[in-house]
Amino acid sequence: MFDLATHPWMRGLFGDDHLAAIFAPEAEVKRMLKVEAAWTRALGDIGETPDAYSVADSIEAAQIDPQDLQDGFARDGVPVPALVKMLQAQLGPDAAEWVHKGLTSQDVMDTSLVLALQGVLRILLERLQNLDESLDDLQRRFGTARLVAFTRMQPALETRVAETIGRWRHPVPRLLTSVETARKQVAQIQWGGPIGMRDHPNAAQLGVAFARNLNLTDPGRSWHMDRSIIANVAHALVQITTAAGKIGEDIALMAAIGPSQITLSGGGSSAMAHKNNPVKAEALIALSDYAGTLQMSLTRAARHEGFRSGRAWTLEWIAMPQLCLATGASLVQTALLLESINGLGANA
Amino acid sequence: MFDLATHPWMRGLFGDDHLAAIFAPEAEVKRMLKVEAAWTRALGDIGETPDAYSVADSIEAAQIDPQDLQDGFARDGVPVPALVKMLQAQLGPDAAEWVHKGLTSQDVMDTSLVLALQGVLRILLERLQNLDESLDDLQRRFGTARLVAFTRMQPALETRVAETIGRWRHPVPRLLTSVETARKQVAQIQWGGPIGMRDHPNAAQLGVAFARNLNLTDPGRSWHMDRSIIANVAHALVQITTAAGKIGEDIALMAAIGPSQITLSGGGSSAMAHKNNPVKAEALIALSDYAGTLQMSLTRAARHEGFRSGRAWTLEWIAMPQLCLATGASLVQTALLLESINGLGANA
Amino acid sequence: MFDLATHPWMRGLFGDDHLAAIFAPEAEVKRMLKVEAAWTRALGDIGETPDAYSVADSIEAAQIDPQDLQDGFARDGVPVPALVKMLQAQLGPDAAEWVHKGLTSQDVMDTSLVLALQGVLRILLERLQNLDESLDDLQRRFGTARLVAFTRMQPALETRVAETIGRWRHPVPRLLTSVETARKQVAQIQWGGPIGMRDHPNAAQLGVAFARNLNLTDPGRSWHMDRSIIANVAHALVQITTAAGKIGEDIALMAAIGPSQITLSGGGSSAMAHKNNPVKAEALIALSDYAGTLQMSLTRAARHEGFRSGRAWTLEWIAMPQLCLATGASLVQTALLLESINGLGANA
Amino acid sequence: MFDLATHPWMRGLFGDDHLAAIFAPEAEVKRMLKVEAAWTRALGDIGETPDAYSVADSIEAAQIDPQDLQDGFARDGVPVPALVKMLQAQLGPDAAEWVHKGLTSQDVMDTSLVLALQGVLRILLERLQNLDESLDDLQRRFGTARLVAFTRMQPALETRVAETIGRWRHPVPRLLTSVETARKQVAQIQWGGPIGMRDHPNAAQLGVAFARNLNLTDPGRSWHMDRSIIANVAHALVQITTAAGKIGEDIALMAAIGPSQITLSGGGSSAMAHKNNPVKAEALIALSDYAGTLQMSLTRAARHEGFRSGRAWTLEWIAMPQLCLATGASLVQTALLLESINGLGANA
Repeated sequence: MFDLATHPWMRGLFGDDHLAAIFAPEAEVKRMLKVEAAWTRALGDIGETPDAYSVADSIEAAQIDPQDLQDGFARDGVPVPALVKMLQAQLGPDAAEWVHKGLTSQDVMDTSLVLALQGVLRILLERLQNLDESLDDLQRRFGTARLVAFTRMQPALETRVAETIGRWRHPVPRLLTSVETARKQVAQIQWGGPIGMRDHPNAAQLGVAFARNLNLTDPGRSWHMDRSIIANVAHALVQITTAAGKIGEDIALMAAIGPSQITLSGGGSSAMAHKNNPVKAEALIALSDYAGTLQMSLTRAARHEGFRSGRAWTLEWIAMPQLCLATGASLVQTALLLESINGLGANA
Repeated sequence: MFDLATHPWMRGLFGDDHLAAIFAPEAEVKRMLKVEAAWTRALGDIGETPDAYSVADSIEAAQIDPQDLQDGFARDGVPVPALVKMLQAQLGPDAAEWVHKGLTSQDVMDTSLVLALQGVLRILLERLQNLDESLDDLQRRFGTARLVAFTRMQPALETRVAETIGRWRHPVPRLLTSVETARKQVAQIQWGGPIGMRDHPNAAQLGVAFARNLNLTDPGRSWHMDRSIIANVAHALVQITTAAGKIGEDIALMAAIGPSQITLSGGGSSAMAHKNNPVKAEALIALSDYAGTLQMSLTRAARHEGFRSGRAWTLEWIAMPQLCLATGASLVQTALLLESINGLGANA
Repeated sequence: MFDLATHPWMRGLFGDDHLAAIFAPEAEVKRMLKVEAAWTRALGDIGETPDAYSVADSIEAAQIDPQDLQDGFARDGVPVPALVKMLQAQLGPDAAEWVHKGLTSQDVMDTSLVLALQGVLRILLERLQNLDESLDDLQRRFGTARLVAFTRMQPALETRVAETIGRWRHPVPRLLTSVETARKQVAQIQWGGPIGMRDHPNAAQLGVAFARNLNLTDPGRSWHMDRSIIANVAHALVQITTAAGKIGEDIALMAAIGPSQITLSGGGSSAMAHKNNPVKAEALIALSDYAGTLQMSLTRAARHEGFRSGRAWTLEWIAMPQLCLATGASLVQTALLLESINGLGANA
Repeated sequence: MFDLATHPWMRGLFGDDHLAAIFAPEAEVKRMLKVEAAWTRALGDIGETPDAYSVADSIEAAQIDPQDLQDGFARDGVPVPALVKMLQAQLGPDAAEWVHKGLTSQDVMDTSLVLALQGVLRILLERLQNLDESLDDLQRRFGTARLVAFTRMQPALETRVAETIGRWRHPVPRLLTSVETARKQVAQIQWGGPIGMRDHPNAAQLGVAFARNLNLTDPGRSWHMDRSIIANVAHALVQITTAAGKIGEDIALMAAIGPSQITLSGGGSSAMAHKNNPVKAEALIALSDYAGTLQMSLTRAARHEGFRSGRAWTLEWIAMPQLCLATGASLVQTALLLESINGLGANA
């Protein structure tokens, strides 16, 4: 509710331009239109209307100002009814018949969320691969230097820097796998209609066509109140912020111990010029803690009463984009933090 | 990190223009300048410089573009060093000497937060009084109607609507007291310098003067890592979202039971025209759940290691403005929800 | 659900015999009987029955095996109906009429919780006073020694040990005030009957008499679904674990820096004999984190739907005793940790 | 810290005898001895000592009173050093040499946790299969009856009971898969020695032998501070409590609507004999909320600083057994709740 991703100065530590672009309101409207268009094309694919493809093109070309959805959202609790009405007015009565026919708001919003998550997770996968390379590079530069391993906040035994970096790197392959697994699993259309029953004579073909038009799969049923595939994405994201937060914890502690462990560039103080605060490391810990509380919201949001829960779904809207942005920012700052390392351990 | 307060459509249910204005970056810069100016005046008040007041006026009149603080924030983890540097450059070398002299970044940011919270809490107090009046009005309109009280999700005994509204109203006086108590308690300057020791020969007078110039009190010492007065504000805010969330829970359940309990206006469905969803009630529950997770972050953020914890303080910046905005939105929506009540209970 | 307070070895770091005794099932049964007896006496006080006091004595003398309440609890979701039934059977038909007459289960359980909390908070007040004395003693022993203050995980400036201990001590007076305020506020009877309406011709006198018999106050109405006074206790407790956790964070970091900051006794390793782990400090941090999550549960539990929420109330039963125990353990370990300090800072 | 699983009456709704037996202190000691024995046998397997198997048998036969570990735990923050010392004293000096040689406390405790989780997850798998059968049975009994589907707390459209039960059943196969996946993934030995480096000339063979002796796999490295496989188990458990909590939410709402939706047996009130409260449904919601906050603790506990974090690991000990027990209780109560259904929907 306080947009760190676009805040003039806070985005310096918490921003993520690439993910912020995905969740920009204009991008959200565009995705919803894309979903509506794909649906209308699917109606054409199963022969329900000959003009489907041209109507769909008009849907995607429609101009909807996000601001105009505010009143409808306040009234309906979802932006879709207002969007559909505006869309139908722009397309004229003949085309209007083929807009949103057989869909419910949640079908549009969930499928749009899925498309957003596809983009988010692809970016995160790329960043995780870059992280692996950065760590590999650090290994080559500093791996053989000596440093004292700390256990339970106490110097334990001397080891090599390679051991520390290895511990940062170990989770990466598992993170790559879990993000990719979650991405594939969530690459599904949402379609069910009002109470999720897919009440249509050609439901099977229609679902498949809808999915194909969006390059998604059709799970064969709606998942309106089964948020497990969203929860699995959230879990994968939190694993990333944990792994990044661990790097932050380590570097903050190493920086406290001193140059025998690490030297960093950057991090000024307004009152003490000699200090060099590990601000990116601290930001990683804060983001990890924050991500943990967002997960708590998403766990609560995963439990719907009845066939659709407004309270749960609404909470998901608040928490899920934030968790994506926090995770994205976490990887952006990890990369910058690793770049800022001037020295690790001590050469004999 | 996903700004519901200014999001084109989401602000329809989650927005709060008045509180959003307080946390706007331009307002934050203005507050930090106000704090720096009050400090420079205080240096004049104790006779440290004759020109303090004219320097202070120049500080307040300085033009700082929030965007220009991004690089400094990314480097220093606080916007203040960059702000001070720009300020000093604008004021010239003679005046520069009297800018931020003896302060640390946290003194500026915490005092600025205190000023923001003063504004926030005053607005919330007013809204709570309005809430009380709205509930009083509902009492007069519907109090004598009959309805069945539910306990443990089961119809228990018949009672009057007055009992239900009374239960919504009962917490209000306590909320007013707790918000006002928290507001007065937090109306303190932060001043300590680098490690919070107030290292100045005239520390006592300087603190008092600084406080007086901002219409705050001087606690006589710094509270850099003692966030209890912030935690107390957070607690007061969460009590509000709980009370509002309870109204939301009640109305959502009453709406499920039907017109013998409540009838509301608004709340459309894109697929089922006959429905009238209690969307504001659901939003209140979601905001209450969300506020609970923000409080969790703030509890974590209240525990600083050493004389200043970057990780804890950073987390506070993420969570505190959001909790204010969530609480504000909660009271905005409660007012609208109560206005939308067309009927309560049944007349004999 | 995993009883650290009585666990054979875990109680070594997480146990609190005094608070555990308060929440022992036998003590809970005894308190419920005490509440039922006070109620029956109150019925006598207002002249509803001449034999009230002798019946009440029999109630308090009744033998109820906690194990026998299991089936009733599983069926009713509260232990009270089964307890009352057993009580009435033991007392015989004449006395049975004056048992629990006009009460509901929640009246008994909430008033019993209030009595438990009175005991808990009195013990915590005493421990906070002892903490203050221990810190005062440390000040005298080590206050003038020098040590480097850390801000943002970096050595900042040299100061005296007195400054560090002062920061541990500063919160104590506020904690004492907030615990005592919460204790007095919660020293209320719960009485409302089935849906909380106090449906009795002499409700005012009856409430006052019931309260007087338990040395509590009568708020003049029920608070079945208004858990704010419980939430305020929870908030006071979490402030304690935060203050203790801060001592833990500081000592863990100081121990990592080394003997120029602190030396501790105790804390062995099975593999590295030279190590002296700050295990009590670590336990304080873990307890503080854990208390934060319990508070999250209690915030959720404070929002009741309707006139009584089983889901919310049940969650309170799970979380509230644990929060008390975690807070108690936190103060027990803080005392032991401070005792284990062999040295603080360095003498010039 | 408040043992619902063994509490005389609370275990009626929150107990789980099978899982409680796994986490009983005596069972924990036995598991630790089993791990130590398997290690000693592994030393024999690689030829380090001829007597390994007989020493190992003596280790498993040793009599250790859990109470005797308290002082050691309080001092060391882990029970293992005291356990090893007692074990060595019982076995005599010759055998003592082959006890715990090359292990660190965390190796023993984590491997013991893994063994516990194997038992827990196997039981949960069985219960999930039973849940599936119970739901199948309900389908057969009530599937064709009519009921009104609720979306956003409002009656939406009429449907069949089969649709509601289908939504309870849909998650089950995914839960089975995720529990089984988590179980296999966590079926690993922990072995690293003091700082996790496996400092032994025959490390590869030793790890494999140790794993084989416990019927676990060897991941080829230690995972002291990489808790991702524990976090994955936690995630799988929370998915179960969410699915069970959804059944609870649905049944509580259906019970509020009335017999056209559901009729249940059980659930008395001490004041209103006509009521039949859905106490098991409410318990499922409370357990689900509680599990969500425990997950929050585990997310925090997954982030270790350095080569071993006492604060993080300690928090895991508090939260993980509780999450297992809450999940177990959740499935026990779901089974009982479904059994208590007397009617679902209405026949035409």
